[in-house]
Amino acid sequence: MMGKGRLEAFSDGVIAIIITIMVLEMKAPHGADLASLQPLVPVFISYCLSFAYIGIYWNNHHHMLQTVHSVNGITLWANLHLLFWLSLIPFVTGWMGENHFSKWPVFLYGFVLLMNALAYSILSNVLIKHHGSKSELAQAVGKGNKGKLSVFIYVTAMLLALFNSWVSFGLYILVAIIWFLPDRRIEKKLVHEEAGQ
Amino acid sequence: MMGKGRLEAFSDGVIAIIITIMVLEMKAPHGADLASLQPLVPVFISYCLSFAYIGIYWNNHHHMLQTVHSVNGITLWANLHLLFWLSLIPFVTGWMGENHFSKWPVFLYGFVLLMNALAYSILSNVLIKHHGSKSELAQAVGKGNKGKLSVFIYVTAMLLALFNSWVSFGLYILVAIIWFLPDRRIEKKLVHEEAGQ
Amino acid sequence: MMGKGRLEAFSDGVIAIIITIMVLEMKAPHGADLASLQPLVPVFISYCLSFAYIGIYWNNHHHMLQTVHSVNGITLWANLHLLFWLSLIPFVTGWMGENHFSKWPVFLYGFVLLMNALAYSILSNVLIKHHGSKSELAQAVGKGNKGKLSVFIYVTAMLLALFNSWVSFGLYILVAIIWFLPDRRIEKKLVHEEAGQ
Amino acid sequence: MMGKGRLEAFSDGVIAIIITIMVLEMKAPHGADLASLQPLVPVFISYCLSFAYIGIYWNNHHHMLQTVHSVNGITLWANLHLLFWLSLIPFVTGWMGENHFSKWPVFLYGFVLLMNALAYSILSNVLIKHHGSKSELAQAVGKGNKGKLSVFIYVTAMLLALFNSWVSFGLYILVAIIWFLPDRRIEKKLVHEEAGQ
Repeated sequence: MMGKGRLEAFSDGVIAIIITIMVLEMKAPHGADLASLQPLVPVFISYCLSFAYIGIYWNNHHHMLQTVHSVNGITLWANLHLLFWLSLIPFVTGWMGENHFSKWPVFLYGFVLLMNALAYSILSNVLIKHHGSKSELAQAVGKGNKGKLSVFIYVTAMLLALFNSWVSFGLYILVAIIWFLPDRRIEKKLVHEEAGQ
Repeated sequence: MMGKGRLEAFSDGVIAIIITIMVLEMKAPHGADLASLQPLVPVFISYCLSFAYIGIYWNNHHHMLQTVHSVNGITLWANLHLLFWLSLIPFVTGWMGENHFSKWPVFLYGFVLLMNALAYSILSNVLIKHHGSKSELAQAVGKGNKGKLSVFIYVTAMLLALFNSWVSFGLYILVAIIWFLPDRRIEKKLVHEEAGQ
Repeated sequence: MMGKGRLEAFSDGVIAIIITIMVLEMKAPHGADLASLQPLVPVFISYCLSFAYIGIYWNNHHHMLQTVHSVNGITLWANLHLLFWLSLIPFVTGWMGENHFSKWPVFLYGFVLLMNALAYSILSNVLIKHHGSKSELAQAVGKGNKGKLSVFIYVTAMLLALFNSWVSFGLYILVAIIWFLPDRRIEKKLVHEEAGQ
Repeated sequence: MMGKGRLEAFSDGVIAIIITIMVLEMKAPHGADLASLQPLVPVFISYCLSFAYIGIYWNNHHHMLQTVHSVNGITLWANLHLLFWLSLIPFVTGWMGENHFSKWPVFLYGFVLLMNALAYSILSNVLIKHHGSKSELAQAVGKGNKGKLSVFIYVTAMLLALFNSWVSFGLYILVAIIWFLPDRRIEKKLVHEEAGQ
């Protein structure tokens, strides 16, 4: 069947661009003193969080595809679907930063994160279906509790955003921390396999 | 002769950038309420359609080059020609979105799609000529009815745009759906080959 | 020594971005009628010429590196030097397009093309020095008459730009046509080699 | 374990974008005479310096990963951390250029360079820890005096910026010159190894 090379290369390209164009939102201020940087502080904080999120997605994407040997047509589309939702992160990051974390931008930011989580989960399921439930990938991904927990926190954060958007923002940071480390399940699995050989 | 590696890598790079810079057209609004997102709705709809189209082109490009073993100088130029027309999609997407699908933007959008279809067809012919009419690629591509149908629909949609641009927009969506699935002709062919071995 | 893989990948990335961000200069007009596209005509013509030039550079870069087996530190810098001058093409393209091909923008456009030609020539010499004067590359590049001719035409065009910038623009198109085909010297050489084996 | 391929590809993508989007800061002026280019001179000088710096980072990154055979999860994050600080270079470049090298922009430019140096040093340590202190990489990197010297100069330049920002700017150029050549320690080491075999 199809190799995974170009899927990885194209995803790397798109994710590299997404993670980098966000910095274009931070327009160099006209003033030359430190005070003129102040309005950029919330924009910069948004940038940091989104940089971390996109980094996490690239990282997990990398780990997941490590265990994959071939792809099919449906995989390509599930992957494009994930890239679509990732591509909306710069927009919601800009909106949230410019409006100092007010409720609707924070709500929408959470919604886009939620859709990314679902898109990643769809991609993961498509890959497992393609490789079989006894594949290395399927056993490594396991029950996906981390994914389910994230979805739960995102929905909670979205609802809370309508009352206190700072709590929501804190919850987004919490999910980032949960995902911060690369998917240990897969890494462990790979190490075990190697040790068992 | 020349390997296809760099052709694929360069195309992946250009297509990845094209699909991502379109999102820069959606500028984060200054207001923080939901109403301030409203003017962006047509821009977002345009973005979705164009994202799907560029995804389709990447997908089909990927499938077509799967069966290709080497490239020559003419292939490089036919490929650049396709990339040129793809690179104009963000521009027409922005114009169409900003003007709420009024007639001339919708007409021009169709024209760019038409030129992309022709450029893809030229690339496909150049590759077939290079590999011979008995090659795996030539047999897989076959008569290319899907391509001919698209060209017919694009021209119809362009003409209709001058009277009712929403019908044209519907037709563009129709073509996207027709092409949505990766080129089954090639995939089937590959599976048969493998089964026959 | 060092493989050429990452040099090619990085160059592909930079060139892909350069060729694509030029399209951002063509800002979608606010009006929805055909007349509102008119101011963009010179911008579009500039875009086409620059797209062709960058395509030519990518093409020739591709052909030249085909015959190369390893790179050294100096090669990396000679390549970055070429990428630097290529990166200025979007700027001069935008300036020339916005000012309807008036003299100084056309002059500067020629200057950047000239520096690109020199940078390419330096890269080519560095590679030949690294591989030896009896290498496949050295014999294929040969006397480099096409390069010398281009430099001569660029200088002529720059001087003429101060009197009639349209003549200069015509000369830039002429050079593009001269370089349009990939470097036949190298391609022929490769074919001969293969035939001789 | 994990191959280094995608780490390199993703880094190449991000660095390629960073080095290229800086040119977007140089907006084509509306006037068509040479005088209208004058305000862009400091922007252009900033661009040149930052282009050199990012080129140096890509170069050294390339050299360092030459000697690396596999990566782990921590490497991915240390690499993303470096890419984060690199991604801020276009912003500080723009701010410094637009404000004609006044003190705070020059100070912040130095700070971002400093953080890049630290991030590169962290990545290098993580890689050495992963490969062992007797690895080819560890021996090649050695004491890292060049890195320590750069950090010292950056801190000095930042402090001096508050009094005379041109001296600081000169010091940044000095560091660029120090790093200009690719890491000879590693290159020499590789050559010795080869000769010793």
